[in-house]
Amino acid sequence: MGFLHARRPMEHAVPVSDRPRGIPEHQERESDAAELPIEGVRAFTAAAFTAAGMAPEDAETMAENFMWADLRGVDTHGVQRLTWYLRWFEKGMCDPASQMEVIRELPALLQGDGHSGLGQLVATRFMQRLIPKAAEAGLCVGTLRNSNDWGCGGWYPHLAAQAGLACVATTTSVPNLAPYGSRTKMFGNNPIAFAFPRRDNPPILLDMALTPVALGKVLRAQAEGTTLPPEWGFKDRDGNPTVDPHLAMAGIVPAIGGYKGTGLAMITNILAGVITGSAHTGAVDVGKRGQFFLVMDPGVVHPDGVDAYHEAIEDLVAQVRAAEVLPGEAVFLPGEPEQKRLEARQASGVIPYPGSVIDGLKRTADKFGLPFDLA
Amino acid sequence: MGFLHARRPMEHAVPVSDRPRGIPEHQERESDAAELPIEGVRAFTAAAFTAAGMAPEDAETMAENFMWADLRGVDTHGVQRLTWYLRWFEKGMCDPASQMEVIRELPALLQGDGHSGLGQLVATRFMQRLIPKAAEAGLCVGTLRNSNDWGCGGWYPHLAAQAGLACVATTTSVPNLAPYGSRTKMFGNNPIAFAFPRRDNPPILLDMALTPVALGKVLRAQAEGTTLPPEWGFKDRDGNPTVDPHLAMAGIVPAIGGYKGTGLAMITNILAGVITGSAHTGAVDVGKRGQFFLVMDPGVVHPDGVDAYHEAIEDLVAQVRAAEVLPGEAVFLPGEPEQKRLEARQASGVIPYPGSVIDGLKRTADKFGLPFDLA
Repeated sequence: MGFLHARRPMEHAVPVSDRPRGIPEHQERESDAAELPIEGVRAFTAAAFTAAGMAPEDAETMAENFMWADLRGVDTHGVQRLTWYLRWFEKGMCDPASQMEVIRELPALLQGDGHSGLGQLVATRFMQRLIPKAAEAGLCVGTLRNSNDWGCGGWYPHLAAQAGLACVATTTSVPNLAPYGSRTKMFGNNPIAFAFPRRDNPPILLDMALTPVALGKVLRAQAEGTTLPPEWGFKDRDGNPTVDPHLAMAGIVPAIGGYKGTGLAMITNILAGVITGSAHTGAVDVGKRGQFFLVMDPGVVHPDGVDAYHEAIEDLVAQVRAAEVLPGEAVFLPGEPEQKRLEARQASGVIPYPGSVIDGLKRTADKFGLPFDLA
Repeated sequence: MGFLHARRPMEHAVPVSDRPRGIPEHQERESDAAELPIEGVRAFTAAAFTAAGMAPEDAETMAENFMWADLRGVDTHGVQRLTWYLRWFEKGMCDPASQMEVIRELPALLQGDGHSGLGQLVATRFMQRLIPKAAEAGLCVGTLRNSNDWGCGGWYPHLAAQAGLACVATTTSVPNLAPYGSRTKMFGNNPIAFAFPRRDNPPILLDMALTPVALGKVLRAQAEGTTLPPEWGFKDRDGNPTVDPHLAMAGIVPAIGGYKGTGLAMITNILAGVITGSAHTGAVDVGKRGQFFLVMDPGVVHPDGVDAYHEAIEDLVAQVRAAEVLPGEAVFLPGEPEQKRLEARQASGVIPYPGSVIDGLKRTADKFGLPFDLA
């Protein structure tokens, strides 16, 4: 999340076009917002995925990933997605039994196929193979094809950092960016995520997509009948500035730095879509996403070894800590606000959920005959 | 250059803080702008570097790099820099005899030390070692410490693409970006450059720094006494929006996407500065830059081989070519406008140079007693 500003906790909000197909945007809401116990939600999520046909250990992986997102406040990428993926299973868009398969290995290259399984599952299994390979060789590139929406992108570099490794990761996503100067949406707002481990602290963890404004904010303006701030830079289909959220969503979505952001969208599309052998550009769809990873042992890549690496990272952190803060602002390391939220929620034992998410959990409980006594 | 817009050819303009130390910003101008013959300028440049103490083959490498920049219209990174680097030699800031040394090799890792030689020289020599290693192993990470300003960043991925390889490269640069929310400049406006080869065409080549507006444009406004467009997003030292170019340069330089761009500046600083074992963050200076490279054989990394890779890349290009262009706009592949300029200049045999650059060449001729009969 870069030098995250405390006022910008929702940049991970899911763009509408990124929503899994067939999931209605609005449901009738019955429940009130409430705080639910972390362990209860985790266990319920695992039970629901198991009831839907996943192997218990795979369901546990999904639950662990969801809870990590929710604990960190990346709410759009956590348990909110349970009903989406269950719907995929129902509609036959995804097989709950699909597993990641390693298709080829070189000393510093791992190639996998997700066989269109849930992205969080197959990409996590892939990381679990990639991490020991990178530790062994000093570094390893990983390519994963036929994956899905991977959820919270920081998860994968986070796994590498837990093993003392650095990681760069990117994924394709549903096309909503046009080449600069055109209106034809063909590149995803592709996240790029990085982690660099620290010795006695959580890693430096940057997880960012390529638009300056989360498209969820435009959807909210649509729903609430408000206009967009002109500085958000949205344009209608003809390239004229617009503050109308409907024209904006049908029009041209701005990327960070204009042609630089659309250029990065094309490059990440090549890294994660083209060279992984997955779908790319306008063909990216459910079950056909690709993911690219570079995992490195910083103690091997740094010519003076791991102690020199950690000394340099701590020096960098000290410089950031010593920065002169602007009036009314605050300075954070990338990933730090989310880490603080995680620690606070772990200490409290609960996570606040909106009524819509609680409704989804209740409907899931009804569907599978699971007990639901969390709220 | 992303999906470069024809109206934005100068994004490579050098930020003031990136100017080598001790070089005055303005010189008395004596010559008029003129078109000079490409081969003549190349030969003169090589002769001047040789006269200044470089080995002839190293001087040729410098000249080749400069001409590539000038041919592509990245004028700020070409022959304009000749007098800067000669001044470095004069002042003892750089030894013309310094060479890149390989300090360690693993099958997929190459570590080098530039011994504070000219960046274009030591980074090119490094690429010349890295490319065959990547071709041999399928991929290779390269780290180079104690390098210098590498000039036109696209050059290094371009060299990889000439060998049929893909490349991601980044460098540290002189600090001019502050952590988001602060005023303390500690990260460079670090370029990131990528190339992906095409079979019968020049590569897709993106070379971009992390600010939306080239700082050279702010300097020009300073010199011309004009104000900045408010949408450029510059702020004074206290974080208030400003259109005054003096307050802007002393204030907070915006990065692409706000905290996302400053986050990327920190990450590239870690990749190129921290894990290369070079200087990083506020300590980046002449002779202490670091560079990071990932070079990959796309025919190895793509699970279905080189033909599948090229088919996918050409499919991507075809989609971009078919994009609906906005009124008054044009769509390009990254690197394409520069490539067209290179081809046009090669065909004409000449490059237009401003009087200030021609003055520099004449002063250099006088200093070394070289003939100068180009203009």
